[in-house]
Amino acid sequence: MRGPSVLVIGTGSIGCCYVYLLTKGGCKVTAVCRSNYDAISSSGIHIQSPEHVWGNVHCTPHRVVRKTQECQETFDYVLVCAKTFPERASFVEDIRPVLGKDTLIVLIQNGIGIEEPYQAAFPGQVISGVVYLPVSQPQPGHCSVKGPDILELGTFPASPPPPSLKRLESRLLAGGAHVACFEDIQARRWKKSIINACWNPLAALCLNTDSDFIHCHPEAPNVLRATMHEVAAVATKLGYPLGDAEIEEQVTRAFTRAKHGTGIKMSMLADVENGSPMEVEAVVGNIVRIAREQGIQTPRLEMLWMLAHAKDQHLTGKKQ
Amino acid sequence: MRGPSVLVIGTGSIGCCYVYLLTKGGCKVTAVCRSNYDAISSSGIHIQSPEHVWGNVHCTPHRVVRKTQECQETFDYVLVCAKTFPERASFVEDIRPVLGKDTLIVLIQNGIGIEEPYQAAFPGQVISGVVYLPVSQPQPGHCSVKGPDILELGTFPASPPPPSLKRLESRLLAGGAHVACFEDIQARRWKKSIINACWNPLAALCLNTDSDFIHCHPEAPNVLRATMHEVAAVATKLGYPLGDAEIEEQVTRAFTRAKHGTGIKMSMLADVENGSPMEVEAVVGNIVRIAREQGIQTPRLEMLWMLAHAKDQHLTGKKQ
Repeated sequence: MRGPSVLVIGTGSIGCCYVYLLTKGGCKVTAVCRSNYDAISSSGIHIQSPEHVWGNVHCTPHRVVRKTQECQETFDYVLVCAKTFPERASFVEDIRPVLGKDTLIVLIQNGIGIEEPYQAAFPGQVISGVVYLPVSQPQPGHCSVKGPDILELGTFPASPPPPSLKRLESRLLAGGAHVACFEDIQARRWKKSIINACWNPLAALCLNTDSDFIHCHPEAPNVLRATMHEVAAVATKLGYPLGDAEIEEQVTRAFTRAKHGTGIKMSMLADVENGSPMEVEAVVGNIVRIAREQGIQTPRLEMLWMLAHAKDQHLTGKKQ
Repeated sequence: MRGPSVLVIGTGSIGCCYVYLLTKGGCKVTAVCRSNYDAISSSGIHIQSPEHVWGNVHCTPHRVVRKTQECQETFDYVLVCAKTFPERASFVEDIRPVLGKDTLIVLIQNGIGIEEPYQAAFPGQVISGVVYLPVSQPQPGHCSVKGPDILELGTFPASPPPPSLKRLESRLLAGGAHVACFEDIQARRWKKSIINACWNPLAALCLNTDSDFIHCHPEAPNVLRATMHEVAAVATKLGYPLGDAEIEEQVTRAFTRAKHGTGIKMSMLADVENGSPMEVEAVVGNIVRIAREQGIQTPRLEMLWMLAHAKDQHLTGKKQ
């Protein structure tokens, strides 16, 4: 049986991992590569990971292109793994020519409210994905995975997973991924936002791991909890109840990692270290905007939002 | 007439300026120097400043010592210009042997609540000073002043300035300082805290000037205002009313500096650049503590407080 065809856009560290998992799962994968085009087109993707994850592996995509426009075909699935920036148009126009009427667009991206532009252009074709995958790409085409992957998928807006999504899930499972489908993926997205919206800017601003932050002062865990409660209040108001239990789960994780000396370097801290722009709006700003619409006060998130913008401006020289 | 004798403790950039101003005003100044002892004992203090401030000047203290304990005498005035850290004992025991019964202890330091340990040990001898003086010490004994000095002095606790304080004021005025005495200096200290408690951690976390911060996002001025309002609410509750007028004055200043490209590098940002510890507790933490006692919510200040601690920990490797 010929495997499904997949286009992966945004072949950063996360994108590279899905090229690998889908190729291993029998898909025909085309990778859109920018800065790592030469490396990946000449020698494929190399991934180092612990034995209990995938070990040290290598894969060669079916095809490597520099731009979506080079593809004169439509795909069964288009995975968008790029970062989300409001000032950069989404890939809506780029992907239009490569979409068939049954193509699923799978957004494997951080943040809240990232699906809207795709949904407006291609209703019924949008899949929202929430990923947990600690990975970096220290050199082009060479990735380093520190822990196991989790991918959570669901339609946008919420509905039971269609057969085409279940087929993708099977391929990913066959490739070794940890993946699950949900009837309402936004509940999972909000749960991850408790971590994302708090830990990411905290790490980027202080340049430390979660474990270091939580131990910097006896009050630090309480400030963290209060910030997480702001995210949870917005989620709860939207019908995705999150509260003390989910927050304590996250705080406890940080304490456990601190105990074992395995504090996590959040992705925004990696951005700061690389001088790359941070997804401030998708990860924090959109939550603040929804909070305002819902009449919820988020003073701590607003502070992190502005500080992250100021830091981003300092790093990238960007002016508004 | 023999001038009064003054001991200056903490001969950083601010301390150097007061050694200069007091020497020029006819005082007999002893400087306690640590890292800049060699430079100042061999070639004095050099200060570069704009013509409308003091121009480029030089002075030689009457005596330079490494420790207060080397001084076998009492002074008319002891100026404490060192940074304030809770984990470092104040100079209470150091200065005990050099105090006569009429010696005034003049604290030229940032923050709130810095006077208590001195007042407890030497009641009736404590003068609280609030200084505005943009100065750095790029190399030992060489200071660079960017704008005019302002020094505000008053007794702690509040009472009319005693004759001995007026005499110090006269000497400082004779030396070219801009100095004024107040019946209740805490009102001035709280006014400065609007700037200190907000701008300092913001700058240290984002590594930018006030002008850059205020332009990083259209919402930045509002987040700044809201944070300043938290400080103002605490001050107002304590009987030092501060509100919209004082806050707009500060926000307007930042916009004006932005317009002229003269954004200010706050002292905590200089600390970050030098890898020096920041006065997080004196400048932010003590305000949060007073707010709690007074039943006032300060979520934005609490966030800045913790972020500044985490940044401080990252910089100095300090663990709590």
